[in-house]
Amino acid sequence: MNIKNMLGDHHVKPYLLKARYGIEKEGQRVDLLGNLAKTDHPKTISINDEHPYIQRDFSETQMELITPVTETLEELFSYLSAIHDVAYQSMGVDEMLWPLSMPPQLPENEDDIIIAKLKNFSNVLYRRYLSRSYGRRKQMISGIHYNFEFSEELIQALFNLQSEIKEYAQFKTEIYLKITRNYLHYRWLITYFYGASPSSEKNFFEKTSLNEPVRSIRNSKHGYSNHEDLQVSFSSIQSYIADISLMVKKGVLIEEKEFYSAVRLRGGQQVSALEEQGVRYVELRNIDLNPFDKNGISYEQAEFLHLFLIYLLWKDEGENRDEWVKTGDVYNEIVALEHPLTHTQFKGDAEDIIAEMEHLVKELDLSVSDRLFVNLKEMLRDPSKTLAGRLYKMSEHSSQGEVATSIAIENHKKSWEKPYQLTGYTDMELSTQILIFDAIQLGIQVEILDRREQFLKLKLKDHVEYIKNGNMTSKDSYISTLIMENKTVTKKILHQHGFRVPLGDEFNDIEQALHAFAMFSSRPFVVKPKTTNYGLGISIFKENASYEDYQKAITLAFEEDSSVLVEEFLNGTEYRFFVLNDKVEAVILRTPANVIGDGKHTIEELVIQKNRDPLRGRDHRTPLEMIQLGELENLMLKGQGYKMDSIPESDKIIYLRKNSNVSTGGDSIDVTDQIPDDYKKIAVHAVSAIGAKISGIDLIIEDLEVPAAHKNAYGIIEANFNPSMYMHIYPYKGKSRRVSRHILYYLFPELV
Amino acid sequence: MNIKNMLGDHHVKPYLLKARYGIEKEGQRVDLLGNLAKTDHPKTISINDEHPYIQRDFSETQMELITPVTETLEELFSYLSAIHDVAYQSMGVDEMLWPLSMPPQLPENEDDIIIAKLKNFSNVLYRRYLSRSYGRRKQMISGIHYNFEFSEELIQALFNLQSEIKEYAQFKTEIYLKITRNYLHYRWLITYFYGASPSSEKNFFEKTSLNEPVRSIRNSKHGYSNHEDLQVSFSSIQSYIADISLMVKKGVLIEEKEFYSAVRLRGGQQVSALEEQGVRYVELRNIDLNPFDKNGISYEQAEFLHLFLIYLLWKDEGENRDEWVKTGDVYNEIVALEHPLTHTQFKGDAEDIIAEMEHLVKELDLSVSDRLFVNLKEMLRDPSKTLAGRLYKMSEHSSQGEVATSIAIENHKKSWEKPYQLTGYTDMELSTQILIFDAIQLGIQVEILDRREQFLKLKLKDHVEYIKNGNMTSKDSYISTLIMENKTVTKKILHQHGFRVPLGDEFNDIEQALHAFAMFSSRPFVVKPKTTNYGLGISIFKENASYEDYQKAITLAFEEDSSVLVEEFLNGTEYRFFVLNDKVEAVILRTPANVIGDGKHTIEELVIQKNRDPLRGRDHRTPLEMIQLGELENLMLKGQGYKMDSIPESDKIIYLRKNSNVSTGGDSIDVTDQIPDDYKKIAVHAVSAIGAKISGIDLIIEDLEVPAAHKNAYGIIEANFNPSMYMHIYPYKGKSRRVSRHILYYLFPELV
Repeated sequence: MNIKNMLGDHHVKPYLLKARYGIEKEGQRVDLLGNLAKTDHPKTISINDEHPYIQRDFSETQMELITPVTETLEELFSYLSAIHDVAYQSMGVDEMLWPLSMPPQLPENEDDIIIAKLKNFSNVLYRRYLSRSYGRRKQMISGIHYNFEFSEELIQALFNLQSEIKEYAQFKTEIYLKITRNYLHYRWLITYFYGASPSSEKNFFEKTSLNEPVRSIRNSKHGYSNHEDLQVSFSSIQSYIADISLMVKKGVLIEEKEFYSAVRLRGGQQVSALEEQGVRYVELRNIDLNPFDKNGISYEQAEFLHLFLIYLLWKDEGENRDEWVKTGDVYNEIVALEHPLTHTQFKGDAEDIIAEMEHLVKELDLSVSDRLFVNLKEMLRDPSKTLAGRLYKMSEHSSQGEVATSIAIENHKKSWEKPYQLTGYTDMELSTQILIFDAIQLGIQVEILDRREQFLKLKLKDHVEYIKNGNMTSKDSYISTLIMENKTVTKKILHQHGFRVPLGDEFNDIEQALHAFAMFSSRPFVVKPKTTNYGLGISIFKENASYEDYQKAITLAFEEDSSVLVEEFLNGTEYRFFVLNDKVEAVILRTPANVIGDGKHTIEELVIQKNRDPLRGRDHRTPLEMIQLGELENLMLKGQGYKMDSIPESDKIIYLRKNSNVSTGGDSIDVTDQIPDDYKKIAVHAVSAIGAKISGIDLIIEDLEVPAAHKNAYGIIEANFNPSMYMHIYPYKGKSRRVSRHILYYLFPELV
Repeated sequence: MNIKNMLGDHHVKPYLLKARYGIEKEGQRVDLLGNLAKTDHPKTISINDEHPYIQRDFSETQMELITPVTETLEELFSYLSAIHDVAYQSMGVDEMLWPLSMPPQLPENEDDIIIAKLKNFSNVLYRRYLSRSYGRRKQMISGIHYNFEFSEELIQALFNLQSEIKEYAQFKTEIYLKITRNYLHYRWLITYFYGASPSSEKNFFEKTSLNEPVRSIRNSKHGYSNHEDLQVSFSSIQSYIADISLMVKKGVLIEEKEFYSAVRLRGGQQVSALEEQGVRYVELRNIDLNPFDKNGISYEQAEFLHLFLIYLLWKDEGENRDEWVKTGDVYNEIVALEHPLTHTQFKGDAEDIIAEMEHLVKELDLSVSDRLFVNLKEMLRDPSKTLAGRLYKMSEHSSQGEVATSIAIENHKKSWEKPYQLTGYTDMELSTQILIFDAIQLGIQVEILDRREQFLKLKLKDHVEYIKNGNMTSKDSYISTLIMENKTVTKKILHQHGFRVPLGDEFNDIEQALHAFAMFSSRPFVVKPKTTNYGLGISIFKENASYEDYQKAITLAFEEDSSVLVEEFLNGTEYRFFVLNDKVEAVILRTPANVIGDGKHTIEELVIQKNRDPLRGRDHRTPLEMIQLGELENLMLKGQGYKMDSIPESDKIIYLRKNSNVSTGGDSIDVTDQIPDDYKKIAVHAVSAIGAKISGIDLIIEDLEVPAAHKNAYGIIEANFNPSMYMHIYPYKGKSRRVSRHILYYLFPELV
């Protein structure tokens, strides 16, 4: 079996970079001064030992963030970033995550390290055993576990190229065993580049501490490792299984999972299953937290690990397999304990490996980030560029603890800066970002089925729901959304149910529409395209319209759509009611773009000031849009006798637009508590008449003091099957209404 | 109250032609020879006394077709034509409707006229009473009842212009009383123009018969009228109510509805309610069946009636109201009994009225059909142009009975010519036309909410369902249709549920797509835009593709959509499964446009022959499309070594297209019974995995003999949320599957 040749085969090459990934990342919760948190795991995260994304590891303060399995590194990092955002915002503003593998200063008395308060008692017992066996301090070390699986296509293609091994499962196992042994042999290279635990904080070492900084305490004998009497061979799957079973039997390990190798072979619940089922993937456990990446690991590192595993598959291993692994342990211990600013004693070997890897990448047509090899070579040339080197150098001026604290504060700030955004998903619609946030927090598994289309699969235990655009679900019927999509049909149905809607007609023909002028001319009326977008093609006639103006309006509207509505104009204020499952969850009032005078600043300055609100941005990626200062705004000012540099008096409201769309700089104001119940009932009953469950319905109300039952007290303009949720969640003024969360509770009533 | 001035007011004028209409049309069922049918009311029409569209009147053979209330004459005639089509096809090919008011030849023994076999016994009793009171022969006369209601806006506007009458209901009543008295006075004009019962058939008159033909037996004393001792005054609503009540009390009438005036005042269940509630509309009952219109009344007649009613509202009436009505009776009797080819003795009055009407139309800006007044004047000038005149003249050469029979046969032919089309709705989609047909037949009320959008409201008693495009309903969830709309998401979900789908990737970027070439090149694969229309932009690579061809295919696909799929090509035949509520209702196989040689005709001739099938047409208004003979077809022929004028040998199948779309002339072949159950189960389970209730799902099956459970026995291409239904209902070959009817039974399970 010539694996080197096989990798270059054209059936194999296309699949080399296809793989499945998963990351687990531990980290300690600390307060804003960098002290270990004294609080419990945040209650906003559903307190569930089995939470798919955010759990506790050894201690109550040790958060473990877990990504789902992904098929690309991009998705992997999207999840990891998003879970970080959720973790941060769930902890609240007074806490943050410690960015280092080595814990912050620990309590003097080891017993003050609180074991995770899990519901499952056997999990607590296991942690008590670990405390006794290794001491609580060591268990406080955090790190990254990187799960990696070659694509099925790749292994299948390799399998097909050879005939020595008949069983596919066995073949897979041999592949993973080879890279595992090679990984254990060469892992000193990872320790050199990405080791990042040079020093420890107070109370980490019980008695002695290290005098000199190193590359990685965590990856040295001082770190998190099994007792030395543990012997497990990786020479074959049989010996691996036999050894681990023996260790458990002898009581050296209390459970199989206590085996803390730098690589764990995965597949099946028990190690014993690996022989029959074959190894499915490997878990690399020797990655220190990267202090310089909020995720604890950078994309470049993850990419390197993938390439390194391909290299290790390609690379010949030593003849004596056990010996080969053991030398690796020795080399790694040496490198781990080197001073972070010195060259490693294996520099020559490292350079050879990197050169071979670079050559392999070319030979196998693998596409990698431009900077990857440049950076690796730079780190070999200059040890102060390695993670340990960088951290140590920064700490020289203050202390490692202070550096860590200021990094944590920076990360904390970023997570709170634009709370409506979900890092990793900012290309998606705002409402979907917020919904993913809520789902992660509630422990609902999220799979993105179509990113551009905002199509998600949500899963809670065995219950699956699909959702698009954050509010299109299995709860609404197809026909109810088609009704809402069609203004004429919506109005007919509401009218037949006794609701007041603006009366009028639909025209599919310019001549007919013009002919109907006489029917509308004596009352205020509106001309609009049947399908409106951002208010284009709408004309309002509040007073007696002339035929000429009517003609213009009709022509304009027909330019936007082949069907045009002419209907009575209703006086009053428009409110958007967000109705969910027969309940009004939020009501918002939208006002046109405006500023309020202070007697000192010009209108232009007031606009600039107002635009500084982080809620404002561009292109619907923020809850509010920037107020523009374009032609339309200038015209509007002119109409009121102002210019850009006018200084309006105190408390004078200056409108810059006629239309109240949030998309043109308008404000959204939550008025849920101010709307009388009878109007809320109208909204609920109207949505129910359409047969809808989720709808944003627009009511014109002339006077909230007048009961809804009064004649013409209200009119219903339209119902929207895809109502913006973010307007209610991040209003300009008033209380936030987390409608996205209500939707999740509606879809998953078992959450309550 | 100067009504003449009021009608010209600009608040009134726009609403003069707004009204609500309804028609009831009676007609006798006859066999193809014109003899009264001996069969029962058709069983295909749900046998329900309360059927909203098709009922029995006096006798079992007398069909009454009823339109719903409409707001335009266009809609009125759409319904009326459609109900006729349904009536014809429900009767079956051996029966037709007699086109005359006067019945066909009646049985010698009056008792052989069968009273309608209604379920409700009091309805039967009423008919028995009528038999005794008037004789069964007279009850066999048929006619049109034309229900007319001025628009609310019109009456309201008139009401606002006056102050004499304070109560709105009373005002309405006065309006309708005035037009009623005037109508009764002037109705001889209708009898002149549209009277159409000049002679009777054998056995109509028991003893004597008329020696000479007349204009309208039905509207004369020989027709269908109350006994002469009946006296009802229309001078005020009070006297009207009092008189009718008295007549019922005295036993002159058995029920209020036995009062057969040419006009009936309507509103409220009982006549007594008219005083308080006001008259709501009038029912004009003196319209003979128009033999020359399949509907029994022409659009022009209906339009005339509307104008005539406006004219009667405008026109001053006689001072003595009762006298005014009585003179009308006398005039009408005279005109009814005039010879159909002579001028009427009131010709001068008639000309004056028509001139006044024409003047009024101009003055009030009413738009009417160009030909209306031309035709009216022509009929005054030449009595042989009136309906009675025309019918009489045609009968001179044979007999009225023979003329009626041949007209009926013509109507019958038209109704059966293109059974898939629903007259009055041919602008709508074929599937919607068929569904409306089925709904009418099943007695489900159909309201068209948006004609261009194929949006219907269906109602059975209190149960309302909305439906769009014939198959978008409340039964499907919004998300399931969004899943089907998105091929990538559909495939992911089906794959996750263990179904075989073509594996592949979605690309949103040309570079990425090109880069993936190596992954697909070694197997057959397809390149297609994510959203496909009529197969545009699809390339299939069955053998090893070159990179250049792949590049072309990718470029082509990206011209159609910004997302492109590259996926494995599945070998086999594509079948469309129509799945409804977890059951396969139909399976169709589509074959490319083709002809079969006969050793005699050229390909061109064979195409022309095949295109003669009435199922073939253009633009999706027929179940199949014409086979074209364009560039693509010529190319395809050339590839097989043929030309247009080649004469293929007997039984040789010549394909004119590669693609099997019905839209390019392909054939649809029903294979429902040939598909093994295990494949049907796959289709049902796949649709259920998507969560859909109505779906057309496309399976590629390599060999129907191979069980579906075999590896790669099938592959699922896509699921359609808007599957064509007509393909299954009118296939080119094989059994028709009335899926539209299944959908109605699914929506209204109470129908069973």
